[in-house]
Amino acid sequence: MERLRKHIEEITSVTDEEFDYIKTFFTLKQVRKHQYLLQDGDQATHEYCIAKGIFRVFYVDKDGKEHIVQFAQQNWWMSDYGAYFHQKKTNMHIECMESGEVFSTTLYGREKLSADLHKMEHFFRVKLTNGYVGQQRRIISLLSSTPQQRYEEFAELYPNMMQKIPKKYIAEYLGVSRETLSRLYSENRA
Amino acid sequence: MERLRKHIEEITSVTDEEFDYIKTFFTLKQVRKHQYLLQDGDQATHEYCIAKGIFRVFYVDKDGKEHIVQFAQQNWWMSDYGAYFHQKKTNMHIECMESGEVFSTTLYGREKLSADLHKMEHFFRVKLTNGYVGQQRRIISLLSSTPQQRYEEFAELYPNMMQKIPKKYIAEYLGVSRETLSRLYSENRA
Repeated sequence: MERLRKHIEEITSVTDEEFDYIKTFFTLKQVRKHQYLLQDGDQATHEYCIAKGIFRVFYVDKDGKEHIVQFAQQNWWMSDYGAYFHQKKTNMHIECMESGEVFSTTLYGREKLSADLHKMEHFFRVKLTNGYVGQQRRIISLLSSTPQQRYEEFAELYPNMMQKIPKKYIAEYLGVSRETLSRLYSENRA
Repeated sequence: MERLRKHIEEITSVTDEEFDYIKTFFTLKQVRKHQYLLQDGDQATHEYCIAKGIFRVFYVDKDGKEHIVQFAQQNWWMSDYGAYFHQKKTNMHIECMESGEVFSTTLYGREKLSADLHKMEHFFRVKLTNGYVGQQRRIISLLSSTPQQRYEEFAELYPNMMQKIPKKYIAEYLGVSRETLSRLYSENRA
């Protein structure tokens, strides 16, 4: 749980007593490669803060094609937030791509902590702010960038994910074909 | 300013004394059709909560093509949040499409109000949560939906914007050609 405390304290400091309370809302869970945390049709009861490992959040369309909504690594939060915040069933999947550990909590936990501790409301607001900005950047990129620009942005923002994530998934995330991605990889290496 | 109070009180109630303090951080500004609130190269000093009117936030790529990041109407908040939260220059534009009024504030205002009043931190967190969910939906739609599906989703979510916004801009927002959009309009009417 010390990792969770460290993560929270990147944004706001908490006393020992406060953290003793905060941690009662979180469960540490081991996750193995290829394990699913959420599957199409499940009730979206939890969100996850990653302590270790790499995950992908994806959507499968009616033709069976996968679309990657988000990759996530250490200190990132993930869920199908539309379903989670409205306590509905998800139409997404969350799969572990590199074994690790996650801190899970529930919407009750998020809301209760936010109501009881102003600093936790601040913590969640700051995390949402960062997520919101990242998504706005991604929307612009999907609307306006060429495959090459998207590839370069991704490689610049997330060099370690570039190393660790299979090309197939990076292509899905960028919305480009695998052939286009392979061409960009070799051009970049040349 | 009563409209601002009503908007805040949709999420959290505030006392008269609190609202007297809150309103010192906001300025009401009249905006006329075609007026710009933000322009490529400006410092993104403000964000805006719309009291009345319709706006578009857009990005112009190096070939002069416009890409619409967001439409905004009553009670929506808008800015180039990437630039605003990092206090940088924007590469976007915000243009008024239907005359109206906005409440503007600064990052200092948002942070100071959040720090001083737990309920305002809550207000901003809830607004961000809604925005985050909307953006996640838009990303999935851009990755996976056909032009027809995107058109139908937009028409269902925002029937009044469908009436009021020129087709040209709706096509830009959906990332489809004007010809495709015109076809969808007539099919829908048939």
